[in-house]
Amino acid sequence: MSTLYATLADTLRTRIEQGFYRPGDRLPSVRALSLEHDVSLSTVQQAYRQLEDLGLAAPRPKSGYFVPTGRQAPALPAVSRTAQRPLDISQWEQVVELIRSVPRDDVVQLGRGSPDLSSPTLRPLLRALGRISQRQDLRGLNYDSIYGTETLREQVARLMLDSGCRLAPSDLLITTGCHEALSVSLRALCQPGDVVALDSPSFHGVMQTLKGLGIKALELPTDPQHGISLPALEMALEQWPIKAIQLTPTCNNPLGYTMPDANKRALLQLAQRFDVAIIEDDVYGDLAYRYPRPRTIKSYDEDGRVLLCSSFSKTLAPGLRIGWLAPGRYLEQALHMKYIGTGATATQPQLALAEFIAGGHYEPHVRRLRAQYQRNRDLMIDWVTRYFPAGTRASAPQGGFMLWIELPEGFDTLRLNRYLLPKGVQIAVGSIFSASGKYRNCLRMNYALKATDTIEQAVRLVGETIKELESQ
Amino acid sequence: MSTLYATLADTLRTRIEQGFYRPGDRLPSVRALSLEHDVSLSTVQQAYRQLEDLGLAAPRPKSGYFVPTGRQAPALPAVSRTAQRPLDISQWEQVVELIRSVPRDDVVQLGRGSPDLSSPTLRPLLRALGRISQRQDLRGLNYDSIYGTETLREQVARLMLDSGCRLAPSDLLITTGCHEALSVSLRALCQPGDVVALDSPSFHGVMQTLKGLGIKALELPTDPQHGISLPALEMALEQWPIKAIQLTPTCNNPLGYTMPDANKRALLQLAQRFDVAIIEDDVYGDLAYRYPRPRTIKSYDEDGRVLLCSSFSKTLAPGLRIGWLAPGRYLEQALHMKYIGTGATATQPQLALAEFIAGGHYEPHVRRLRAQYQRNRDLMIDWVTRYFPAGTRASAPQGGFMLWIELPEGFDTLRLNRYLLPKGVQIAVGSIFSASGKYRNCLRMNYALKATDTIEQAVRLVGETIKELESQ
Repeated sequence: MSTLYATLADTLRTRIEQGFYRPGDRLPSVRALSLEHDVSLSTVQQAYRQLEDLGLAAPRPKSGYFVPTGRQAPALPAVSRTAQRPLDISQWEQVVELIRSVPRDDVVQLGRGSPDLSSPTLRPLLRALGRISQRQDLRGLNYDSIYGTETLREQVARLMLDSGCRLAPSDLLITTGCHEALSVSLRALCQPGDVVALDSPSFHGVMQTLKGLGIKALELPTDPQHGISLPALEMALEQWPIKAIQLTPTCNNPLGYTMPDANKRALLQLAQRFDVAIIEDDVYGDLAYRYPRPRTIKSYDEDGRVLLCSSFSKTLAPGLRIGWLAPGRYLEQALHMKYIGTGATATQPQLALAEFIAGGHYEPHVRRLRAQYQRNRDLMIDWVTRYFPAGTRASAPQGGFMLWIELPEGFDTLRLNRYLLPKGVQIAVGSIFSASGKYRNCLRMNYALKATDTIEQAVRLVGETIKELESQ
Repeated sequence: MSTLYATLADTLRTRIEQGFYRPGDRLPSVRALSLEHDVSLSTVQQAYRQLEDLGLAAPRPKSGYFVPTGRQAPALPAVSRTAQRPLDISQWEQVVELIRSVPRDDVVQLGRGSPDLSSPTLRPLLRALGRISQRQDLRGLNYDSIYGTETLREQVARLMLDSGCRLAPSDLLITTGCHEALSVSLRALCQPGDVVALDSPSFHGVMQTLKGLGIKALELPTDPQHGISLPALEMALEQWPIKAIQLTPTCNNPLGYTMPDANKRALLQLAQRFDVAIIEDDVYGDLAYRYPRPRTIKSYDEDGRVLLCSSFSKTLAPGLRIGWLAPGRYLEQALHMKYIGTGATATQPQLALAEFIAGGHYEPHVRRLRAQYQRNRDLMIDWVTRYFPAGTRASAPQGGFMLWIELPEGFDTLRLNRYLLPKGVQIAVGSIFSASGKYRNCLRMNYALKATDTIEQAVRLVGETIKELESQ
């Protein structure tokens, strides 16, 4: 016959396992439970001790019991070991395999970079887009200024204050997504044969752009918590004719870290000393879990050498293809490169976004998703801990919605992906985040979508498939 | 006391001058007028003879009287005399001056490349855009395939049958306007230092792209009726290491001619003989005044050396920034260049355009505007004949909505533009259509918008300002 405390422990375990309490949640206080279940405080404490033994509850001094985020958080990935020289880019075939994939209902796409689009806080944007068409706004059908729609540039300049940037609308170019902002920046700064220094692993879009422009990539060792190695960067700047440094210092993709402010300032000083430009990708910056959001390197920039690139693709909707570039002293070259690439940017989405932001809808939406992504991060790490082989390493993202997984040396995620696709799960293979096909033993998973059993089962399937392949 | 025929002649003259009958219109038959005004047939014939003397009516054998299109059509521009060697591009400053300009109510913008957006046949497109937002179609907010939305590529492939092209959706890339299609094509084919042969005058967007990519432009003599000189092209191909031929053979911008089919085939044979690629800009092709529309060079292409570039910017709405590229054998390189420039193309407008075309709304819209543009061409030429100095030369566009004007050697349209802007009229100066600043004595005027007194007065103002400047 089960005792009082065992019964209570069972009740709590069920609630936890049903997800009523999720990893990281605070569990009811001892006092609350003793009142709720009409048992003594010591009975509740016994129940909690039993849950502790089961690894389902963890005490925190002066703040009660919590659901642990994974019995034991996995170790961080190793600091990346990179080649010691500039490289030509490869890996286009793997990138194509990823970008060819269209959103599909029958595949859980953990590989793509899409945010959660189902949040009700996004509806005002759809309404704004609808209104512009309904009111037969012919302006929306015509070309607008090559710089971008004035009202949107005003709103973007305002939003960028949160990252410490004081910019005028005239400092901004609206672009076809962050992708064009990055591409324009590289074309404005570099010639074929030039060398660009990168954090590593790094966004495949940038590396494929380097490939397309005949620019060489110098990948630098990067710490999964503090970002690009400054000593390594300094050595590289002394050794190679580096034209620009391209990196994602805030809510990095794929590693999820945010460079400490001190490192951001030190990086800028290095760039000044060696007179090189910095191309700063801030596309995930507004999705940092801590508030206020971290500052950009651009916010410390005084001589206009930082080209800040961003977009609404991760915060709102990638399908709009609306981004922006704050090119500093390189405005004229950037304008030329923007013009010759696509001409003006689509007008309707710019008008709609300006209405959406001016209507006060941006901040609540981002606040909501930030919280959702943080919860999902804990869950995803918990699932990886449960379902992936022991010894799996995982990043500890401080923003965004991407988890980077490092498997033992020699494991091949390209092969893993080929096994997963027929089973209806897609991941991003690690090798596309390197100029030279490193990180074959790594993969990136997207945790933006609302955590469902479908997703948990997909992650479980990835873990089990890894175990199968390891045992072969 | 005025006679019967003089009274009738007055009535008709008033109707013509009030625009009740427009240049090119058929005037009422002699019989109809004699019944309407209860006068004899010979009285009507006398009245018409008087109108003939006034240059307001012209008889056509077996088809009655018409309103003449301009007392005497102006002579065509001379065949362009081009430099004999590849050139680096200049003129960016003048281009910026044009593309900086935003549509404004207080300026009659004869310089921009916008079509008429006020036609009711365009409303179904706005409705389609509205519907996609209203039905909360989240697909519209997400990335779609890097190739473009499947349904739109199907519709585009179908539309291209009219130009003689048999293409599968998988042969097409959807791009951010024709501008990106051209830019992608040049980047897929050329390296810095390469030479590209062009018709001349030629679209400034292409030439600025050559500038941005460090490619040299070889401008070739171009006939205002038959297009690029094939003998000159053959000489050039023998003399220079030409990588590609870029031209707009159908409804050329800015000259308005359409190359005869025989010339298109001969051009393709030259390209085959010298093994060079052809970048064919067909963005005005569906706006040819004759039906069925002229064939593209692409429609004769058998070994995939023609990259066909087009968009909906001239037929529907430029603000959507939706174009396409049929890159033939260069699909893989083009896909890479598309990816690194902008990533995927915006999804919502692609879905809306696919609905619009599938709904059967494209053809009626284009048919209506084709007729409007043809009428406007006659009016515009008529106004130029009336208001511009004697000896002004003008193109005879066979499609599209651009008129090219050639003024006497030495006249400076840059200066003209500076005089016109404060007066609220903007033109496109000729020099931006040359790699090296030729055509300073030329200008381009847009006649897309419904012909109004405002526009006639604007054209008149241009003509009078030219006369003022000539007399200085």
